[in-house]
Amino acid sequence: MMLLVLGNTELSLIKGISIAGANPELTKFTPPADAEYIFYDRPKIIDAIPVTPQGHPTPAIITKACYELAGFPITVVRAGTFLAPQIPHIHVSDDVGRDFRKTQALPNVDEIVEKGKLIGCELSKVVNEVVIGESTPAGTTTAQAVLWALGYKAKTSSASPNNPQELKKDVIEEGFKRANAKFGELADKPIQALKEFGDPMLACTLGISIGFRGKVVLAGGTQMLAVSAILKALGEDLRRFKIATTRWVVEDRTATFERTAEEIGIDYYVANLDFSQSKFNGLRDYERGFVKEGVGAGGAVYLAEKKGFSCKDVFKKVEELYAKLISNEI
Amino acid sequence: MMLLVLGNTELSLIKGISIAGANPELTKFTPPADAEYIFYDRPKIIDAIPVTPQGHPTPAIITKACYELAGFPITVVRAGTFLAPQIPHIHVSDDVGRDFRKTQALPNVDEIVEKGKLIGCELSKVVNEVVIGESTPAGTTTAQAVLWALGYKAKTSSASPNNPQELKKDVIEEGFKRANAKFGELADKPIQALKEFGDPMLACTLGISIGFRGKVVLAGGTQMLAVSAILKALGEDLRRFKIATTRWVVEDRTATFERTAEEIGIDYYVANLDFSQSKFNGLRDYERGFVKEGVGAGGAVYLAEKKGFSCKDVFKKVEELYAKLISNEI
Repeated sequence: MMLLVLGNTELSLIKGISIAGANPELTKFTPPADAEYIFYDRPKIIDAIPVTPQGHPTPAIITKACYELAGFPITVVRAGTFLAPQIPHIHVSDDVGRDFRKTQALPNVDEIVEKGKLIGCELSKVVNEVVIGESTPAGTTTAQAVLWALGYKAKTSSASPNNPQELKKDVIEEGFKRANAKFGELADKPIQALKEFGDPMLACTLGISIGFRGKVVLAGGTQMLAVSAILKALGEDLRRFKIATTRWVVEDRTATFERTAEEIGIDYYVANLDFSQSKFNGLRDYERGFVKEGVGAGGAVYLAEKKGFSCKDVFKKVEELYAKLISNEI
Repeated sequence: MMLLVLGNTELSLIKGISIAGANPELTKFTPPADAEYIFYDRPKIIDAIPVTPQGHPTPAIITKACYELAGFPITVVRAGTFLAPQIPHIHVSDDVGRDFRKTQALPNVDEIVEKGKLIGCELSKVVNEVVIGESTPAGTTTAQAVLWALGYKAKTSSASPNNPQELKKDVIEEGFKRANAKFGELADKPIQALKEFGDPMLACTLGISIGFRGKVVLAGGTQMLAVSAILKALGEDLRRFKIATTRWVVEDRTATFERTAEEIGIDYYVANLDFSQSKFNGLRDYERGFVKEGVGAGGAVYLAEKKGFSCKDVFKKVEELYAKLISNEI
């Protein structure tokens, strides 16, 4: 079973920080539209699937392909977004993460974590493994800020081949200044780190992970490193957890996925997708470092493989869905 | 696994029609407070558990007792309520059922049914039986209106020993006049009957029941007869469904539970609870016809019995919870 946790942070409105939307304003629509697209031919909240400014389709297309192939259940969780998805979803909060350069990111972190725990606790009565994916524009910036506050010299990935590390660094340093915090200073106060610099997705995923009593697969790239680091700092036994991500994240030389995962001590699964033979430019560009991961894509492939489907099967299904999308647009 | 579907209808604001709240205005709080009380010692949205004007505690106390004994999972669904429960819940709609004397009750019935179907469909990938309970002040009036529109000479029950049948009849007749409808006239148009006279809980429970592919236990009293009647009118095979209710509903001489269930052809389970030996007046009064059922009480006992607990075990736990409630109030 898969949960898809949706979050927004005001940071995605900073120009150039996120390409999870055709422009900063549209990043408000990305999480609900991602979720809706999995269940329907088109999103409901907006009549277009989320794309980068250059038109690369959302990784939700991979998640949808796996969902349609393997038929596992997906439950959407609104951890804190500008807009509610127009499909049934678990409501946790409609507060988004605030711009941490100006104010605390998540004053309500305790409430979100507590609600997440309750979701996880109830869920463990039904299944013994849960895969948790996410959609959070600019979430790699909040994740990197949290990792820095916890003392990890990590670089998170980006949906762009030109990872805006300089911009991320400036934003994070401004946030650290506002909070009067130093690198590694919150290593023993992980919830405080979330409160100062996190986003609702991180808090909710953390709560679910703690409340759930079985195996947890954190489906995402470098953002899930931040969740893992907090779990470790809280004393959780990391053998119960692993990250599922894609080859594109692991191979990203602008980020430190493998090194940081090792430093934390979290195991990971890599979805070995290859879009180099795609008929479509928008998908071939995944091989050039666009998009990479998101909406639990790696975790969805993990679930599809468990049901006997290969990465090639997933690729074929993605091609089919993309062709359908394009034909709809005509 | 149990779903608890929450609904409101403006009809609960009519004086004397519902005692699911200390006064009509407080019936707005009843569904979320019922849901919250199951998971916590007290509701969150209001610092009191829902009671009748005479102080009888909500049947959520029975559901909570079973939940704590047997440890089955409960998921709360907001089909359409004035207020959101302050716990994680599946959001379907925040539109309440309108006063059908003045306007159509559920203009958005199709959307609610569709969302319910999606919930049911995803759920059937995880479990093969689902118990659906509800909390809907004045829901017996909407249920009776729907049953009449479908051609059943049914009398629904009430949380009061003095079932306000005259008032219900007047309200329903006014509604029929507004809609220019006659008894039995919508027998072949069950969704239209819901749209004119229903409530969000009925629509959502219907959708979930259709979308789910396994066994469905409709946990409620005479309101679940309305859902059953619609399922039948839509051509569903009723062998997949049964009602779970309490002895107090079946024995209610002011209503027609058994006769109407037979007429529809729906099977039912009866929770054989007996509160006559309670130390507390508020619970002994259940034997005098107060409260009777609600918040999936009968279905919760059904689940507890499946896990090896008896009605006596449930009674003992209810006594314990009630003692705790009273001590909290001091």
